[in-house]
Amino acid sequence: MPNVTFHFENDKPVTVSAVKGSNLLETARSANVVIDAPCSGNGACGKCRVKLVSGDVNCKKSLHITDEEYAAGWRLSCISTIENDVEVQVPDIASAFKNRMKIADLNSKEEIAIFEDARKAVEDAGMPMVNTMDVLTVSMDEPTLDNPMPDNERLTRAIEEMTGIEKVHLPYMVLKKLPVVLREGHFTVKCVVRQTTKSVFVYDVFPSDENIVIGGLAIDIGTTSVAALLINMQTGEIISRASTGNGQIRFGADVINRIIESSKEGGVKKLQDAVIKETINPLIAQMCRSAGFPARHIYRMCVAANTTMNHLFAGIPSDYLRMEPYIPAFFKTNSLFASDLGICVHPDAHIIIAPNVGSYVGGDITAGTLVSMLWNKPEFSLFIDLGTNGELVFGNNDFMMCCACSAGPAFEGGDISCGMRATDGAIEACTIDEDSMEPTFRIVGDEGERPVGICGSGIIDIIAELFRTGIINPKGKFVREGRRIRHDKYGMGSYVLAFQEEAGGPKDVEITEVDIDNFIRAKGAIFSAIRTMLTSIDFDISMIEGVYVAGGIGSGINMANAVRIGMFPDIDLEKFHYIGNSSLTGAYSMLLSRAAERKTYELSTNMTYLELSTVPSYMDEFVACCFLPHTDTSLFPNISQ
Amino acid sequence: MPNVTFHFENDKPVTVSAVKGSNLLETARSANVVIDAPCSGNGACGKCRVKLVSGDVNCKKSLHITDEEYAAGWRLSCISTIENDVEVQVPDIASAFKNRMKIADLNSKEEIAIFEDARKAVEDAGMPMVNTMDVLTVSMDEPTLDNPMPDNERLTRAIEEMTGIEKVHLPYMVLKKLPVVLREGHFTVKCVVRQTTKSVFVYDVFPSDENIVIGGLAIDIGTTSVAALLINMQTGEIISRASTGNGQIRFGADVINRIIESSKEGGVKKLQDAVIKETINPLIAQMCRSAGFPARHIYRMCVAANTTMNHLFAGIPSDYLRMEPYIPAFFKTNSLFASDLGICVHPDAHIIIAPNVGSYVGGDITAGTLVSMLWNKPEFSLFIDLGTNGELVFGNNDFMMCCACSAGPAFEGGDISCGMRATDGAIEACTIDEDSMEPTFRIVGDEGERPVGICGSGIIDIIAELFRTGIINPKGKFVREGRRIRHDKYGMGSYVLAFQEEAGGPKDVEITEVDIDNFIRAKGAIFSAIRTMLTSIDFDISMIEGVYVAGGIGSGINMANAVRIGMFPDIDLEKFHYIGNSSLTGAYSMLLSRAAERKTYELSTNMTYLELSTVPSYMDEFVACCFLPHTDTSLFPNISQ
Repeated sequence: MPNVTFHFENDKPVTVSAVKGSNLLETARSANVVIDAPCSGNGACGKCRVKLVSGDVNCKKSLHITDEEYAAGWRLSCISTIENDVEVQVPDIASAFKNRMKIADLNSKEEIAIFEDARKAVEDAGMPMVNTMDVLTVSMDEPTLDNPMPDNERLTRAIEEMTGIEKVHLPYMVLKKLPVVLREGHFTVKCVVRQTTKSVFVYDVFPSDENIVIGGLAIDIGTTSVAALLINMQTGEIISRASTGNGQIRFGADVINRIIESSKEGGVKKLQDAVIKETINPLIAQMCRSAGFPARHIYRMCVAANTTMNHLFAGIPSDYLRMEPYIPAFFKTNSLFASDLGICVHPDAHIIIAPNVGSYVGGDITAGTLVSMLWNKPEFSLFIDLGTNGELVFGNNDFMMCCACSAGPAFEGGDISCGMRATDGAIEACTIDEDSMEPTFRIVGDEGERPVGICGSGIIDIIAELFRTGIINPKGKFVREGRRIRHDKYGMGSYVLAFQEEAGGPKDVEITEVDIDNFIRAKGAIFSAIRTMLTSIDFDISMIEGVYVAGGIGSGINMANAVRIGMFPDIDLEKFHYIGNSSLTGAYSMLLSRAAERKTYELSTNMTYLELSTVPSYMDEFVACCFLPHTDTSLFPNISQ
Repeated sequence: MPNVTFHFENDKPVTVSAVKGSNLLETARSANVVIDAPCSGNGACGKCRVKLVSGDVNCKKSLHITDEEYAAGWRLSCISTIENDVEVQVPDIASAFKNRMKIADLNSKEEIAIFEDARKAVEDAGMPMVNTMDVLTVSMDEPTLDNPMPDNERLTRAIEEMTGIEKVHLPYMVLKKLPVVLREGHFTVKCVVRQTTKSVFVYDVFPSDENIVIGGLAIDIGTTSVAALLINMQTGEIISRASTGNGQIRFGADVINRIIESSKEGGVKKLQDAVIKETINPLIAQMCRSAGFPARHIYRMCVAANTTMNHLFAGIPSDYLRMEPYIPAFFKTNSLFASDLGICVHPDAHIIIAPNVGSYVGGDITAGTLVSMLWNKPEFSLFIDLGTNGELVFGNNDFMMCCACSAGPAFEGGDISCGMRATDGAIEACTIDEDSMEPTFRIVGDEGERPVGICGSGIIDIIAELFRTGIINPKGKFVREGRRIRHDKYGMGSYVLAFQEEAGGPKDVEITEVDIDNFIRAKGAIFSAIRTMLTSIDFDISMIEGVYVAGGIGSGINMANAVRIGMFPDIDLEKFHYIGNSSLTGAYSMLLSRAAERKTYELSTNMTYLELSTVPSYMDEFVACCFLPHTDTSLFPNISQ
């Protein structure tokens, strides 16, 4: 059998044997060699390229590899089969991953303020964030020969007397430590409990002198990014905020590719491991380490995620989500516990899942809808969640309709060559002088910070400004010439925001026609979805009284520019509100308020789902939207003026 | 650091480094070298002897090692410390283990008949063995675009409609396989359920064409032996019966030594592993393999065990069982599941535990009491469970009292030099001619079978006959001379039942004064407990209307001889009944009958526990009982005649 050796920039090479004719990408994966393959090996994305150092592979033609690149040894691994002993160089995946993790910094002042506003809105709507879990200090008589009641009964009875509730459940983990803890605490102990009117569930028990904070975890599992809040369940205080890329991304950039990958042998486990072992567990460990909080004291989790993500998170086959009639395994489930899924928190931690509405509208949207307050107003509003999937909810306190469209990772900075998170050095706002074509930036960080890359809100500004100044045409192609505009040998244009000598990083910061094209398709997906949904119920854009924008794109988003490029409807700018990561805020609310949890379940059952692919006009609408701002400029009267 | 090398008869030697001055037994255990140490390293039992091959150990004097043995290199490992590089020979533990595993063969015709009688008695007492679990065949409409209910809700609703019960619980394991199973079964599936009036718990789901038998496991975890029944939960049929030694035995022969061992660092886990990983899991695997039954289809277990055994089984610290005021962690618990304990059956299998009454009267006795039918009669009866711990219950349908005494492993054939199970070659009954002193046997097996060893019932007969014929005196010492009687150089007498040329095995079959002495102390513990308990409530032996004897001693037990040696009270022999392994039969009943389960809980709360060690006269009584039949022969009027 031929040997295949994978070389890396910063790591030892890996060699495996492979049967002649094996697929190179599959061989790499079987050896745990990570090659970036967002389209999951369909030959579509062109990302899985490797450079042949020696030996032969049989590789089909691909538009993604030019003749020069082919001559230099570049091959797409997903369409290459192994002929004989082969050595290949694998591009550094870490940087590819980093490029895809550009959501807003949860710890920024702005994002925290937006979170606080959203949280307050939920509370003001009658869902106070009271403690859904408690620490009870329970004292018992010490046992004697005349009072030989066993430990579990002694504690159970004491809790019954204290709470007046007769059904007290002590799970195995508590029973196991009970004899020692009771005696260490001299028969006064602290119990971590969740209480209903009918029962008390005891999650943990400690000697009374220990200081116990009940931790909770709200987590938003996006297709591209994962964000989490570590919460003090008694006070609602946020102990730590963090986000990271979804480790599943190497199996495909969008949910369809993930589902395809998961349907292969062992695929469900592989995808589950990627999101739990490689993403969530390290994220929890990082938050707990930085806050000095014991992960085992996290007793409850709420996950808000799209339907595919919550199925793969739970290790449940998701094939049927993408096959007609598109049936999820669950909308709502109460059956998940940390130990089942191997999540490194307390093993008995209950994992609640924000409910799904259908295969393509999931818990991220129901949790987000809760936070959007759409359901609490008589006037009609639109809730837009800008993620890898874009989801929309339209309605009021009487009815709600929702739909989903595939936007790709552009809103999270994915597929943008100089994209980055909204951290130091990110261009978050930009204007361009029409005459000189010179840019002016607002850069995240201290004064004098130099640009390193572009974050989500910056991309909108840059495209809007390039368009306003006539540097690019409605198709996104460069039509003016100048110092900052250049074309590569294939004719692809780009605009240099900062040459290397002006930049804070090691290279030019630029935006290319490919970046612009990716972004136009993303915004086109959103706007065409809005139009299609409203049209389906005979509504008009002018009837929208409020637009609530959520997602990792960040608080820096310039709504005027988002309208100008035809991403959002051309209505009064005052009607736009950025509400941050509403999926995460919703998960937080469900953890801390039973009313919010109930309300979210209620919302999920009251939403009507529109499957866009079944609406014949949707594709035409999409094509019409892939312009700046739109082929039908009458839809954007203010812009056109 | 010195190296210590352990040599074995049939295995590769093991070498480890040890700090000078380390204890040799501890060093062996740290290297997973098994040295038989029933007293758990207290220097009391003399079993942990090893033979020094080279090097030096510092070893205290011990009565268990003679000067000759010492000169030959024999040392007690528990009182030896390592001085320099040492090589020792370790006696074969397997044979030591085998010698302790001599309970009755569950598969023998006699034992099966006794089990069937006991089972019928439970049924006749109003506790029919109806199916407590069911297989439901559930049909659903196939989903369509217009009927897009998710899989879990579809199944839940169908079960609700079918059963009329609104609370249907689908645990994670079911959810995880549901999408695939529903479609493989074309939306007709078989569900393994347990149903109450209020809820349906779905344990498993299969495509409708699969043939599903719901397995249950009744298990009796004794200090010395473990016995189990694999049951068809729908019919009550016994699929397989098996027993084995308790792997914990190397950590001590009785519960006190086990508790001491478990209180050392990592001890609870070590003892739990010994009974689950080394004993129960292999036993389950063996039963399932022989019956061709998938272990994952075992959905419910009932464990009957003494309090120490059920605590260590559950991995719960048991130190407090032996410290005043002797408080167990639980009498009753509903919180144990197979996955918590690492038992290789279905991970969601619920493990019910026959309830404990106190630290020294456990679930084996409550389950056994159920089967004894004591609680169902107006007349007073005595239930005796002959195990390593002997337990007694006395009472009627109005009141019950119980106590426990430490009998040691003699009733299970432990500590009897030629002891063996009641299988082919075992002497199960014996008479001795008073004049010739020649024995006549009944041997288990085909006609012409030659004796290999002695099983429990045989030991009683032999001692009774040696006593009746005046070969031994009331103290158990040999007082006649003859061909079959010999004395070793230390003067210890023995009686040869079969010389090597008469025997079916490779050596003489004999009974020694040490064997007799061990047995006299065991029977003395039982009879003194009976006397002490009855006296405490002003009852007299003559008031006992029935004696129900349980335990692994086997159906061959000769009650007349048991009375003759002063083990059982001297009352009408017709009042004695052997009821087999009542602990196991009780566990079986609790699995198959909710009424039996409830009744056992009820019995456990209604028993009064007498702690014998708090009764001042108990020790005197015990000493008086260590005679054949008793120092006070007026207690045995029929024998004395």
